[in-house]
Amino acid sequence: MTIPLRILPGDRILDVLPGTTILKAAHAAGIDITATCGGRGRCTSCRVKFLQGTIPPPTIMDELQLGADLVREGYRLSCQCAVTESISVQVAPPLDESAFQILGAGAGVAGRVAIQSGVVKQVVKVSLPREEHHQTSDLEELLATIGRTPADVHPDLLKQLPAALREGEGEVTVTTFGPAVIGIERGDTALMKFGLAIDVGTTSVVSTLIELESGEQLASVSGLNPQAVFGGDLMSRIAFAQFNSANLRKLQTRIIGLLNQHIDQISRESGVLAKWIYKVVVVGNTCMHHILLGIDPSYVGLAPYAPVMRHPVVLPARELFLKVAPEARVCLLPIVAGFVGADAVAVALATRIYESAELRVAVDIGTNGEVLLGSRERLWACSAPAGPALEGAQIRHGMRGAAGAIDRVAVDAGGIHVHTIGEAGAQGICGSGLIDLIAGLLDAGVIDWTGLIDLDRRDALPPALRARVRKVGDQREVVVLRPGEAGATREIVLTQDDVRQVQLAKGAIASGVAMLQHVAGVPNERLTELMLAGGFGNYISIRSALRIGLIPALPEGKIRYVGNAASLGAQLCLVSEPERARAEQVARSIEHVSLAAHPDFQDIFVDRMNFPRA
Amino acid sequence: MTIPLRILPGDRILDVLPGTTILKAAHAAGIDITATCGGRGRCTSCRVKFLQGTIPPPTIMDELQLGADLVREGYRLSCQCAVTESISVQVAPPLDESAFQILGAGAGVAGRVAIQSGVVKQVVKVSLPREEHHQTSDLEELLATIGRTPADVHPDLLKQLPAALREGEGEVTVTTFGPAVIGIERGDTALMKFGLAIDVGTTSVVSTLIELESGEQLASVSGLNPQAVFGGDLMSRIAFAQFNSANLRKLQTRIIGLLNQHIDQISRESGVLAKWIYKVVVVGNTCMHHILLGIDPSYVGLAPYAPVMRHPVVLPARELFLKVAPEARVCLLPIVAGFVGADAVAVALATRIYESAELRVAVDIGTNGEVLLGSRERLWACSAPAGPALEGAQIRHGMRGAAGAIDRVAVDAGGIHVHTIGEAGAQGICGSGLIDLIAGLLDAGVIDWTGLIDLDRRDALPPALRARVRKVGDQREVVVLRPGEAGATREIVLTQDDVRQVQLAKGAIASGVAMLQHVAGVPNERLTELMLAGGFGNYISIRSALRIGLIPALPEGKIRYVGNAASLGAQLCLVSEPERARAEQVARSIEHVSLAAHPDFQDIFVDRMNFPRA
Repeated sequence: MTIPLRILPGDRILDVLPGTTILKAAHAAGIDITATCGGRGRCTSCRVKFLQGTIPPPTIMDELQLGADLVREGYRLSCQCAVTESISVQVAPPLDESAFQILGAGAGVAGRVAIQSGVVKQVVKVSLPREEHHQTSDLEELLATIGRTPADVHPDLLKQLPAALREGEGEVTVTTFGPAVIGIERGDTALMKFGLAIDVGTTSVVSTLIELESGEQLASVSGLNPQAVFGGDLMSRIAFAQFNSANLRKLQTRIIGLLNQHIDQISRESGVLAKWIYKVVVVGNTCMHHILLGIDPSYVGLAPYAPVMRHPVVLPARELFLKVAPEARVCLLPIVAGFVGADAVAVALATRIYESAELRVAVDIGTNGEVLLGSRERLWACSAPAGPALEGAQIRHGMRGAAGAIDRVAVDAGGIHVHTIGEAGAQGICGSGLIDLIAGLLDAGVIDWTGLIDLDRRDALPPALRARVRKVGDQREVVVLRPGEAGATREIVLTQDDVRQVQLAKGAIASGVAMLQHVAGVPNERLTELMLAGGFGNYISIRSALRIGLIPALPEGKIRYVGNAASLGAQLCLVSEPERARAEQVARSIEHVSLAAHPDFQDIFVDRMNFPRA
Repeated sequence: MTIPLRILPGDRILDVLPGTTILKAAHAAGIDITATCGGRGRCTSCRVKFLQGTIPPPTIMDELQLGADLVREGYRLSCQCAVTESISVQVAPPLDESAFQILGAGAGVAGRVAIQSGVVKQVVKVSLPREEHHQTSDLEELLATIGRTPADVHPDLLKQLPAALREGEGEVTVTTFGPAVIGIERGDTALMKFGLAIDVGTTSVVSTLIELESGEQLASVSGLNPQAVFGGDLMSRIAFAQFNSANLRKLQTRIIGLLNQHIDQISRESGVLAKWIYKVVVVGNTCMHHILLGIDPSYVGLAPYAPVMRHPVVLPARELFLKVAPEARVCLLPIVAGFVGADAVAVALATRIYESAELRVAVDIGTNGEVLLGSRERLWACSAPAGPALEGAQIRHGMRGAAGAIDRVAVDAGGIHVHTIGEAGAQGICGSGLIDLIAGLLDAGVIDWTGLIDLDRRDALPPALRARVRKVGDQREVVVLRPGEAGATREIVLTQDDVRQVQLAKGAIASGVAMLQHVAGVPNERLTELMLAGGFGNYISIRSALRIGLIPALPEGKIRYVGNAASLGAQLCLVSEPERARAEQVARSIEHVSLAAHPDFQDIFVDRMNFPRA
């Protein structure tokens, strides 16, 4: 016996076996509901709103992730909600609430930051010139109705103005951003007003579509930065760009190409025409920022690592060849220093660290990690060149956090136990899995505190583990999965080199935190909170992160996930011009701490490369 | 026995027969000296400056064309100057003086209008960031030296800034135009500062390269507007653009393509790299202006003929895809009305009609002619849709004023006598030849005052003419040249249809003048002067123009050639920002007189189509 499940938008009615979750039923029927965490109740992306039928009592996950207000409004996580009777639900994800909890109380962006995107649409009726001796023009008549001057209007907007005026009987919708007119459309299009927040990371790029009147998030897509084929980390990418100017153009073209793919995809998924996107906010580290603008980043990679520019830039989209409204304004947030970019500024904005009365740390984990430490008194930042290991790159069997990635690992006397994203057959190990795995192997004594896979102590291991530790040629390895285990079709191993890569990555981030504490004179005891940010920061086990020494030894209760804070900061600036103005103040107030230039750095780094002794 | 003639630049020494003109000797040796009038002492393009040897006494042509100052400085027209002893001369044409006589006294543009192009080059020494903890950027250090803000600098200029700063040891040349930084170049390029004046006519396009420090004209090229294949006059071109938006793009692409060809050619001829052109001034009628910007001109062609915009526009060259310095500023002069464009404004500027104490008329002869009438009190303008007949188009054997074109005609009892440009074999008839020819045929009684080739009165003609008048089918014709005459390889005829085309053209212009006189209440007697402008205005015989009634019956002494005044007005705005600012005042002060809307126009037009009775 099946139960009917109605899903909007699209108005599909599915026949569902009782007890199936809404998410599973939808996916089985080919309906795309985003499940960023893989359906584990750890994010809000899959939530639905009940339209008909009994709303089930909220699970703990519902309450944690959605918050009391949304739960009361009838929202539930579709991954947590089993179908037991005939219901209708609407798939309608607004902004990422779990992350926005850090911004204040109440549900929805509207309650957390006043919506003031700067994009204004105005429907006007223009009187057309009627007599020849009246010396005027279409534009002058239009400007008279909106009180602007010709200098506010780019001539490109006039290309189709005469037809728009005459075919719409003089009714047009004028879109402005600050003093600039950025759109003139036939008829009334006042309700169509959207923006895009883009976080360009060294390894991953995330684009999020927001409705600019409500602040509602309509769609979000992410992808690998296609520049990665020319170098995984910033330094190798800079070296590639340095080689010749064609290489720089290649890098620029690749990222613009990806952003246009994102725009296409997001437009298809949401049904929002790209021409209705009038504002784009971009954050990224200094190198990504420079390459996006086609600016030679060579000297960003050479001491004293000077950026070419730091001020916030606003450009028409046509100049960056982004396929949104041609006059849409692309706003790049300001930069702090050569390796502390607009993404760090965005993290500061999203975490509100700059207005905190207490001392806090924000750690944005990525290929180029950023660490911020401070309060409303002073704010320090540094860049931690972790490399892409924690994003699964440059690891023998590493992969991104996609279906089939081992994202959770437990090690005990019975062997190595894994969980994969989407519970698919294991394909490889992603960052959170690597951290769990190494933490488990440290506890089990397979790896020692220097990071060595300790073959000499193999005989002391429980048999189930002993059989997994081996040496192949010169390389020490741990067999994580044998073919057939957890659906793996091949052997999945962790090599000694993999451990070294993770040590370099976690060493960089841990030394970044330690250096800022050192410079600011803030011992662990004085820290109120450590916020773990980044595209996959949310998926890391805090216990494992502490075990491997990725973060300082704080009580677990002081450590909090804050989601993809760089993207959230971009979203804040997208919906709020005051926030974008604040970005500049925050950027100017951040004190950059250069790791390489500091005499104590080498000692700290060598120490933090090791794992904490149990 | 030959005499040595040394020519600079290039330092060629030619062996010349005594009595040969410098121009002929140079051309025979393959040295390009421009001879716009065909070596007839009627322009200044071929002038040279004596460096060594006795300077010959000036001819009357030298005095008329060059003026006392240049003659005193050792300038002579090379077409008028025969070599009689060993001399050295420099080919060095500055701005077109014959036209600039109207602007005031003294030689050279510098004396006539103060050079103040707005383009400023500044060589600065930038101190590079030396220490990592110093939070700054390349751009901030640069701006500190020139006192500008980041908003003045387009990010595109920063693409190669870091390399320029470091490879030139911090020395860069910054080019500004008003508040905007429009160039940043490695090292000292302060001497390289050029501009381009462009007159986009319906049929012809003229581009002139000017050195912006001295105002010196370095090169000038002209060509047919390649849009002409889609329609010879404005209305047919508007109809083509109206058809679909691809057609509009085609028209825009064609004119931009031609301008880039001009830039290539002018750069090759002058040796000036296109990247050193930082300012471009464009004039043209409203339709040409709109099409250049890609603006739909459909409604310019429909009553009430409203232009889409009228204000002066300044755009970076990259936005129009012009291959000069990417941030060069392209300045489009303002527009008066749907059919009175920036070219009319430029004519007003060049002729100084707006500051005249006396009443004057300026007639700019072209496919779309413009007529201005007034003084410093009031200024009226109208557009005269002459069509391309006077530029040799839509005439059976018509052609442009190029080598082989019949440009002078005399008709007497001995028959029809012609002169061709460059004294080459006759290929066809250009505008000035057509006017001479019809004037002569009117006097000889071959054509009557209604424009009819009068076959009935053929027998009264002298035998040499009688044999040239015939009827072929329905078409009445006058045989201008038989094969072999004046080097013609085929028969060249004037048809009855050709006469009608000329009548339409001259009728349009004459009615334009008459209408302005009518509206302003100014009879011939109150007119101090009539200025004949246009690319080929200079080559028209004033007597013939009076004979056919192209211009009102004023004493010959009141009629003056003023050269290509539209292009000259553009050149003025190129070298002088105050002139460009004045263009806006002048455009606002011009009162547009609509011919079609005026009740008396039909009568006037029908009357002016006829020829004056002798």
